[in-house]
Amino acid sequence: MNHLTSRAALLAAVPASALALALPAAPAHAQAPVAPEHAASAPATPAADLPPLYADEFARARVFVAGMMEAGVVVPQPRDPGGGYTHEQHKRNYRAILLSGQLYRITGDQAYADYVRAMLLAYADLYPTLGDHPARSNQNAGRLFWQVLNDAVWLVHAVQGYAEIRDTLSAADRERIDSQVFRRAAHFLSVESQATFDRIHNHATWATAGVGMTGYLLGDRDLVERALLGSDKSGQAGFLRQTELLFSPDGYYAEGPYYQRYALMPFMVFADAIARNDPQRRIFEHRDGILLKALRTTIQLTYGGYFFPFNDALKDKSLRTEELYHGIAIAYAQTRDPSLLSIARMQDRTVLTPAGRMVAADLAAGRAEPFPFRSMLLRDGPEGEQGAVAILREGEGPRHTALVAKNSSQGMGHGHFDKLSWQLYDNGHEIVRDYGAARFLNIEAKEGGRYLPENETWAKQTLAHNTLVVDGRSHFDGKVRAASAVAPEQLHFSVEPGLQVSSARVDGAYPGVGIVRTLVMTDVPGLESPVVFDLVTAESEGTHSYDLPLHYQGAVIELGFPVESHVAARPVLGEGHGYQHVWVDAEATPAAGDGALTWLLDGRFYTYRFATDGATRAVLGQVGANDPDFNLRREPLVLLCRESAGGTTFATLLESHGRYDGAAEQTVASRSRVAAMRHERQGGKDIVVLTLKDGGQVALAVSHDPDPGARHSATVDGREIAWSGFAAIVEIGRGGN
Amino acid sequence: MNHLTSRAALLAAVPASALALALPAAPAHAQAPVAPEHAASAPATPAADLPPLYADEFARARVFVAGMMEAGVVVPQPRDPGGGYTHEQHKRNYRAILLSGQLYRITGDQAYADYVRAMLLAYADLYPTLGDHPARSNQNAGRLFWQVLNDAVWLVHAVQGYAEIRDTLSAADRERIDSQVFRRAAHFLSVESQATFDRIHNHATWATAGVGMTGYLLGDRDLVERALLGSDKSGQAGFLRQTELLFSPDGYYAEGPYYQRYALMPFMVFADAIARNDPQRRIFEHRDGILLKALRTTIQLTYGGYFFPFNDALKDKSLRTEELYHGIAIAYAQTRDPSLLSIARMQDRTVLTPAGRMVAADLAAGRAEPFPFRSMLLRDGPEGEQGAVAILREGEGPRHTALVAKNSSQGMGHGHFDKLSWQLYDNGHEIVRDYGAARFLNIEAKEGGRYLPENETWAKQTLAHNTLVVDGRSHFDGKVRAASAVAPEQLHFSVEPGLQVSSARVDGAYPGVGIVRTLVMTDVPGLESPVVFDLVTAESEGTHSYDLPLHYQGAVIELGFPVESHVAARPVLGEGHGYQHVWVDAEATPAAGDGALTWLLDGRFYTYRFATDGATRAVLGQVGANDPDFNLRREPLVLLCRESAGGTTFATLLESHGRYDGAAEQTVASRSRVAAMRHERQGGKDIVVLTLKDGGQVALAVSHDPDPGARHSATVDGREIAWSGFAAIVEIGRGGN
Repeated sequence: MNHLTSRAALLAAVPASALALALPAAPAHAQAPVAPEHAASAPATPAADLPPLYADEFARARVFVAGMMEAGVVVPQPRDPGGGYTHEQHKRNYRAILLSGQLYRITGDQAYADYVRAMLLAYADLYPTLGDHPARSNQNAGRLFWQVLNDAVWLVHAVQGYAEIRDTLSAADRERIDSQVFRRAAHFLSVESQATFDRIHNHATWATAGVGMTGYLLGDRDLVERALLGSDKSGQAGFLRQTELLFSPDGYYAEGPYYQRYALMPFMVFADAIARNDPQRRIFEHRDGILLKALRTTIQLTYGGYFFPFNDALKDKSLRTEELYHGIAIAYAQTRDPSLLSIARMQDRTVLTPAGRMVAADLAAGRAEPFPFRSMLLRDGPEGEQGAVAILREGEGPRHTALVAKNSSQGMGHGHFDKLSWQLYDNGHEIVRDYGAARFLNIEAKEGGRYLPENETWAKQTLAHNTLVVDGRSHFDGKVRAASAVAPEQLHFSVEPGLQVSSARVDGAYPGVGIVRTLVMTDVPGLESPVVFDLVTAESEGTHSYDLPLHYQGAVIELGFPVESHVAARPVLGEGHGYQHVWVDAEATPAAGDGALTWLLDGRFYTYRFATDGATRAVLGQVGANDPDFNLRREPLVLLCRESAGGTTFATLLESHGRYDGAAEQTVASRSRVAAMRHERQGGKDIVVLTLKDGGQVALAVSHDPDPGARHSATVDGREIAWSGFAAIVEIGRGGN
Repeated sequence: MNHLTSRAALLAAVPASALALALPAAPAHAQAPVAPEHAASAPATPAADLPPLYADEFARARVFVAGMMEAGVVVPQPRDPGGGYTHEQHKRNYRAILLSGQLYRITGDQAYADYVRAMLLAYADLYPTLGDHPARSNQNAGRLFWQVLNDAVWLVHAVQGYAEIRDTLSAADRERIDSQVFRRAAHFLSVESQATFDRIHNHATWATAGVGMTGYLLGDRDLVERALLGSDKSGQAGFLRQTELLFSPDGYYAEGPYYQRYALMPFMVFADAIARNDPQRRIFEHRDGILLKALRTTIQLTYGGYFFPFNDALKDKSLRTEELYHGIAIAYAQTRDPSLLSIARMQDRTVLTPAGRMVAADLAAGRAEPFPFRSMLLRDGPEGEQGAVAILREGEGPRHTALVAKNSSQGMGHGHFDKLSWQLYDNGHEIVRDYGAARFLNIEAKEGGRYLPENETWAKQTLAHNTLVVDGRSHFDGKVRAASAVAPEQLHFSVEPGLQVSSARVDGAYPGVGIVRTLVMTDVPGLESPVVFDLVTAESEGTHSYDLPLHYQGAVIELGFPVESHVAARPVLGEGHGYQHVWVDAEATPAAGDGALTWLLDGRFYTYRFATDGATRAVLGQVGANDPDFNLRREPLVLLCRESAGGTTFATLLESHGRYDGAAEQTVASRSRVAAMRHERQGGKDIVVLTLKDGGQVALAVSHDPDPGARHSATVDGREIAWSGFAAIVEIGRGGN
């Protein structure tokens, strides 16, 4: 299989044995791991019995391609940045090339092949005339697009469409398109843009995928090997190395879920081509099946279908994206895992490949099973040694509760400075929020759709996240290189019924300050379940100021302490590291004991409560200061501020409670059931004592000792309490433990 | 039929001939206008063949009542305001009395009757001991609740539940409940609270309904007649007079849609009882069928099922409310209008009456037809002489475009000072917004769930609406009495394909200033359809300052003019009439020509453009200043400000355009297609000239002459344009009209 003819390569390079659908005369493709039944039975015209999901996709593609055909072949001189006309037109074109090719395969209708040919001949005229894109903004300029990444995406799509029709061309046309479009594009990506090509980075994955698939199609082993092993074919770069370094052993992609989704497509599509052309590589078994693991992990990194918006992430990205349509189809064809079908059902989309057809058919046959969303620890780093993402879930279905602790590595240039940050989802919403990226993708008026200046000045800063800020400066002083050198350590992770714990520490985010955060999602007798305890300890010899932000969402219902409101002139919180973007609405220094804030979101109440010795200032703020271009969302936050010598611990509780039904005019339990909270540290153990309004008393006791069998004790109000393991809920007022 | 026995009254007072369902021995009720087939065939136990919607309702009621029974009879001493424990418990109790009674009728299970009996005997112990409610906040104190209104609502529900089981009681129990609960409650409402009872107001509708239905049940004609005709039985007050004065001839309720919904339930439920007990009154034909007209009008006053939030309105109120479940069932039983079934389908709820069963059965039988939402003018005032609400709709389905012009009367104490205000809905969202009320209904921590102080200081003020503010003061200086004395005049209303117009004027909102507003929702060649032109003319001899706010929703994408941003210290807009609640983000005085602001909401772009001679200041602001208790939503607005001698006209255009699909990363037409806009007044005619980016030129020409046949002309750039009627779109650049 090493030296394929053009025709065999054609059959192999498209993501399926699929070609048989369109070309019944093609020889049976014995190595094809997918859908031989479809290949055997496929007619040259669309069967009336296409499974519904596939039929929808087919119809959608026909409408799109018909519209494109109606408009003719429009291949403009590149000019605009993201979101601009020429940018969008070249994107439409690669979709049209791919879909028209696939429609040709399915229908055998020559018009589709002719359209792909005409489009690619137009590119053959244009491509050789191009230099760097006029709207480039950095060294990584593309040809057709403002950045080289988009050129790689163009190639990954176009080469798949071309593969479907290349066989139908005259030798002259084929030669012209091969050499003037695909060889040039592959050369541009792999030689002229070698620095990008040889990175260990998602841009390089797209580039290697495009180049490698072009190599398979043109029967050019040199291209293939450079794609797989890097420019120098040493294996120190290239696609295979990327599968080893970009994913952790648990299938976590260092840049975070948003880029994991994006990176996944070239990984899956190129792997599919490798599996077909070089089956002896057993690419889907490579590194303990890392690619299929990564696909499943990508799905785990969602709530309500939306990706956890770590790092530079657009919050409207969900499993309902092109990348995941391809990913699900390819993974299902490899595994026949019925839980992937339920994801396809949620997506309500698939792709026009035999694998997509198989997904649609098996879904229609009722083979779907629920996807097993669950609590899990995803180690980060190529060896799993660079911290982790902890996901704690409780309950089932679209309104279940999920806590995410981001104890992972920096995630390269798109990483945010938010070590040990967390998020909470409940009742279908993001309750404790991550801002994501400051960017309006593809909207020209917003800096050409690129990342906005406020992405640096706000979204990446520590203050924009739910984690500790020391001395008013971001982690690692906001420097990527320093941040990339240090990863947090996951100290403990345990999942038991009614008690889930994640604990991690990071050293080096600030000189001389170690930070340990323990998040406990647990049931507490007398409270609605689950609640979240959060213990953030700064270990330091020196004196520092500590600020702990919580970015919430909802209408403020009740403040449990008197505030000084800045009703007529709101000061700005500070001068840099994101502080310049926060308006101060109100401030308070609650008396010793605890302070609480209750808000309402979509019919559910949330009370955030913090223990204080009387020296913690609470700041209620809103994002939006120093934002002359209205680039930021005007979201609220509460900030706990404390000055301390020799370290400190913030102990807080997030309690969700009650129900507000505006339609039925029913309100239940709109007020917290906690009367008081206090926190004590006893010999390295943390004890949080809650007194409930019904008089009950209960404590969260944390030993920080991961040995589940070890016994621990502490003293509360002169009484000893005892427990086993890292953490426990101990009832006191109702008769002790 | 005038003197019913208790048993006949029982049969009559419940909203159906329904009793037969539970009491098969009951004589056929010849006058029953509804569901004789159900009455004839009904078994004493729930049939397995209950239609699905009714079966769901039955199951839901069983769960609720089982929970209530489990908790026992809990009738607490009244103590708390809205949202508090005793308030909510008494609400739960009246629901339990009603539903348990209905379940008894359906199942014949004595336990349900026993529970109603036990509950009412507990009320018989409590009721005689009660004085004014301790949490009362004004003269209209209730007994069980903080305001008399809730006591009336309690009675309307409880009497229906009682009717279902009264026949099963011993004479002693019946006598005790009759006299200690229902006669006392009726006396409290009709005699002790006579001032409320005799008002022409929705509180009085609930009171008369409760009292009248009690009268029917107890066979007390005196109660019935006082309910129908007022305390003095003169007909100057009471239910019948309310049907004449509270609805306009078009079925519009003066307080607005939110209270129309609320008022509807006692109107419909009591009318249903009247129809049964006093069929000769032909109550549903009274005043040209006003009650059924009002029900249909209530539905027309919605978008996406949500009521237009005029006046004091909570924005989460939709057709999915108890009032409308009853309303639809009763109206359907009267009319068999299949379009009401589609509303029931959207509600996915009904009521446990024979009418509800009929709705469920006919829905299951596939008899539903779409409800005919359409453009319409709803006159306000008992004679239709107090202005109007104009609704302009274009398109179909949940994302259609709807414009609402509020040219109606003040709407009593819940009215806002917003003459000629408007709203726009598009793409499933409220684009140009009305704030609604500042209130968290039933949330105790928010002033006991009552209207908040900010309802007076912000929500009711003119600045909080999309209408003209003169000299920084609200219409009628914010005085209800003055505002109630004046109504706008609807000058013109026309609905033609591609051109819909509402024009109205108001005099007296300000001394010496007349205001005319013309809203045109129209197709414009070269622009996406529809767009909205807005012409607001102030006619005045004197010099005034004029402020025109637009309350939009979305992320600011582009400002078409340079602004001075208050990035580090936002001033407050002003000192009273709502100005104290607005932070100023940015200000600008765009050069002569036009200014534009583009925002993005849910994938759709909106550009608001205004013509200016260079002396109009644009203020970008956000609600939330002087709001120490976080009672206000932090929403954005843009304010056009101008100082002028001898009147002025604001000419604006709202253009919706393009599409942003974050998931597919596709952006289309994110920028306005308008290159320039200007406005001219020529001899009382308004001409708005648009120059499009494609070079085309088009004008909106408004003659203000309602005669559709009259010819008009004007001059644009030296060329004459001509049109007929009130308003027209005239193409200039593509070859004239």
